[in-house]
Amino acid sequence: MSKEPLYAQVERALAARIIAEMAPGDRLPTEDRIIEEFQVSRITVRRAIANLVARKLAIVVQGKGAFAARPVVDQPLTALTGFVEDMRAIGLEASAVLVSLTEEHAEREVAEALRLPWGATVTRIERTRKAEGRPLSFDRTFVPVDIGRKLAEDDLAEVPIFTLLEEKYGIPLVDADYTLQAAAASETVAAALDCPVGAPVLRITRTTRTVGGRPIDYELLHYRGDAVTFTTRLARPTGEERP
Amino acid sequence: MSKEPLYAQVERALAARIIAEMAPGDRLPTEDRIIEEFQVSRITVRRAIANLVARKLAIVVQGKGAFAARPVVDQPLTALTGFVEDMRAIGLEASAVLVSLTEEHAEREVAEALRLPWGATVTRIERTRKAEGRPLSFDRTFVPVDIGRKLAEDDLAEVPIFTLLEEKYGIPLVDADYTLQAAAASETVAAALDCPVGAPVLRITRTTRTVGGRPIDYELLHYRGDAVTFTTRLARPTGEERP
Repeated sequence: MSKEPLYAQVERALAARIIAEMAPGDRLPTEDRIIEEFQVSRITVRRAIANLVARKLAIVVQGKGAFAARPVVDQPLTALTGFVEDMRAIGLEASAVLVSLTEEHAEREVAEALRLPWGATVTRIERTRKAEGRPLSFDRTFVPVDIGRKLAEDDLAEVPIFTLLEEKYGIPLVDADYTLQAAAASETVAAALDCPVGAPVLRITRTTRTVGGRPIDYELLHYRGDAVTFTTRLARPTGEERP
Repeated sequence: MSKEPLYAQVERALAARIIAEMAPGDRLPTEDRIIEEFQVSRITVRRAIANLVARKLAIVVQGKGAFAARPVVDQPLTALTGFVEDMRAIGLEASAVLVSLTEEHAEREVAEALRLPWGATVTRIERTRKAEGRPLSFDRTFVPVDIGRKLAEDDLAEVPIFTLLEEKYGIPLVDADYTLQAAAASETVAAALDCPVGAPVLRITRTTRTVGGRPIDYELLHYRGDAVTFTTRLARPTGEERP
């Protein structure tokens, strides 16, 4: 942590403040105030603010200063990572609220994703995921019941499911299939994400597999459309590979 | 075309019919009718219908037959491909309506994406993209004006921009940065996509680069949330690479 450059420390602290406390349009502290608070140079402050602008967390109005933008958290869509890992990578504090954990008979969609017989018992876990205390995602996770009963004994508000699977239960994660779609927030999703019913959410279904291609975890993730973007880089196939 | 397996020919014909002509819940022709129409075996018909079910274009109700589902077109998010290429890969007929082509001074977002000075002249092209005649996407494309003036001479309702860039103007495409977000349809987008204002749309910004990392094409794509999904597969990073 002490090896983190000064501008990055300032950037991280200001980003957390924008996401946790500020409304779009609120004025950031002046350069002089930031210099005083963090005991850093003006060039360091300017670099931190330029990075906040590039991350779309702030805007600078010439001659007027820097203002909080509508906070948009950008997550990479390039590797199988969990919410806590994604937030840590951009210096934000992640937390979770466990909404429910129940056992139920798998509906067709869940059974097919987990390659279980229809009606097999599965554990359904609902959590709200937050960054700096703001809800970004409502996740519905389905796992086979033997894993679900272990998860029920653990603290799902504190420890990510991926961490428990890999590090505590010794189940390596290999890859996942993602499906992305824009959808309207249902009443349940809207309540969890503190947004109006019908507001746009990015709905991701994710089937995560362990070794041997065996599905181990099926999730329905709902991200607030106004708060989260996903980015990736794709290469152009060569002529022969093109459809 | 003649090398396409029989079940795939039947599947493609039925998929086109579902997307172009049928409403969710409409009954598909019976197996006997399909056998008669296409002169194929029952096993071929069943395989075609099973594939339509897997693609979420149809549902089968035991003892009642097959019905059109709300058509959802699934596109891969694994390589830089254009709309026409994506539709061709799943056997759907793509078309485009050119809504507008204008020259304008680049706003900040467009100028930064294309690495042009603010206010530089760019060409803005708006198109509605259709599969089997149904609007799936409303695209706003920005290109440097020298390319835009060439495009203005070509038939953008018929020929994809990627094809013109690569094959006619000799500008190879290398890769692209994508940002995905759920958004609410604006009036312009809703009119183009034939959906209510405020309906969820998947908003993709895409900056496509040619050799040397030079951006050549910046697009804002709006996909109907109820009609299009994107899928990808991501691998778990090894322990050291994880955030």
